[in-house]
Amino acid sequence: VCVDTLVAGVHFPADTPPACIGHKALAVNLSDLAAMGAEPAWFFLALTLPSGDRKWLDAFAEGMASLARLSRIALAGGDMSSGPLSVTVTAIGRVDKGTALLRSGACAGDLVVVSGTPGAAAHALQNLQASVVPETSDLAALECPDPRLALGRELRSLATSCIDISDGLMADLGHILEQSGVGADVELGNLPCPASLENIAGPERWPIQLAGGDDYELCFTVPPDAEGRLDAIARGCGVELTVIGIITDDDVLVLRTADGQLYEPARHGYRHFDSPGEDPA
Amino acid sequence: VCVDTLVAGVHFPADTPPACIGHKALAVNLSDLAAMGAEPAWFFLALTLPSGDRKWLDAFAEGMASLARLSRIALAGGDMSSGPLSVTVTAIGRVDKGTALLRSGACAGDLVVVSGTPGAAAHALQNLQASVVPETSDLAALECPDPRLALGRELRSLATSCIDISDGLMADLGHILEQSGVGADVELGNLPCPASLENIAGPERWPIQLAGGDDYELCFTVPPDAEGRLDAIARGCGVELTVIGIITDDDVLVLRTADGQLYEPARHGYRHFDSPGEDPA
Repeated sequence: VCVDTLVAGVHFPADTPPACIGHKALAVNLSDLAAMGAEPAWFFLALTLPSGDRKWLDAFAEGMASLARLSRIALAGGDMSSGPLSVTVTAIGRVDKGTALLRSGACAGDLVVVSGTPGAAAHALQNLQASVVPETSDLAALECPDPRLALGRELRSLATSCIDISDGLMADLGHILEQSGVGADVELGNLPCPASLENIAGPERWPIQLAGGDDYELCFTVPPDAEGRLDAIARGCGVELTVIGIITDDDVLVLRTADGQLYEPARHGYRHFDSPGEDPA
Repeated sequence: VCVDTLVAGVHFPADTPPACIGHKALAVNLSDLAAMGAEPAWFFLALTLPSGDRKWLDAFAEGMASLARLSRIALAGGDMSSGPLSVTVTAIGRVDKGTALLRSGACAGDLVVVSGTPGAAAHALQNLQASVVPETSDLAALECPDPRLALGRELRSLATSCIDISDGLMADLGHILEQSGVGADVELGNLPCPASLENIAGPERWPIQLAGGDDYELCFTVPPDAEGRLDAIARGCGVELTVIGIITDDDVLVLRTADGQLYEPARHGYRHFDSPGEDPA
């Protein structure tokens, strides 16, 4: 079971097309199910919106329903309230006992793999915030992410750990390391790059790719002898898979540039509050 | 499975004590489980709040945790976001196949029963909105409702239909009538009255009691020969039970005053939007 809330002005600009909001609110939860290798079963929608605008609602519902049909998940209940625009989806998936992908199984020597090209969504958001028109593929990654359900299914019998990188690759890989009690050595030169970021130099690009968040790709670990199977899985699922590093037996995440230098990031991932635990009053 | 959202400024005043918000957000969902005769199992919390205020969060969590312990339901996951204060709880209950209480089983001749004294919560809210200090028992009904889980459990083998009256007695009894394809004849003289409303004349009191909403009492129907068992159930569950009417074989809800006059209410229950389906722009 997973639950995720999208709040207007926090997780998406309030003027995002309603079909995209409907799509994304379901997609972010399907992404969590994918990261567990679960088959989508049912979802529940709690929708808070400022007015009963029929056109908005129809578009929102169609965006959500299209993805639900495609992903074979059924809307089984919900609640509608008036208030500031916000969407909470609770999704329930099924997986055979003992086969769910966890965050806790990575072992020293395992390969660290990432799907897709992290950074596109964060780059689109950065452009929107600077009033620059984002590239279409970046905007699609931000507004209309494609949950990696087929990949999660394939990984059930292969990966030793898995997570989606919605809070940023570094922060979410960090969760795997912490829960597995291991470290990792990541080579930034291997980081697959969205087309829109190809001409941006590493030091300017890496923060977006490593800490940007809002990417609904999977980061997972596989035993080293499984590397040969990744190509077939990538083709079967229609998604790029790239080995970016290796699990180590200490407990730190080491990032290296192509020439072997250590890279020290300024920011590790998305933070919901600037000062957690502090009273801003 | 049920899901309910509470939004600050809509479902509760923003300055409501955080422990009460935590309690109520879980209670409104437990009330839905009670109305199905379900045993609480797990719940998931999606919390959106404007700041990471530790004191507020501790009090909120304690209010929610106390009720969770008492009701034997376990927090099994959740999500936290920054944004306007809003709480969505998804609760999962269990009930043996075929024994869940539904809204669709009421038959002509069944008795219509209500628990507690509807109107207290709405009366407290009315007072708060008029800057009048509400009576303690009314405020408790509004801020700290007691979900009728024990009653729901007893009704599994007795009631032909059941609902909680969170949107107002008339609107929610209306759902039973619609889904059962029946009508009802309700005698307003039998409507049990909160102490604070005892000295208010019927025509002024009935709208509060019938359409006020935010009452987490149960309205249910039982076969006429079950009337004798209601007293024992009421004592066992520590809640007042009152027969307020009878199910009829037409499809309307008829309300009568003590002298047999028909009563025509101005408003049927809580409406989330003034003009559902209309674009206010």
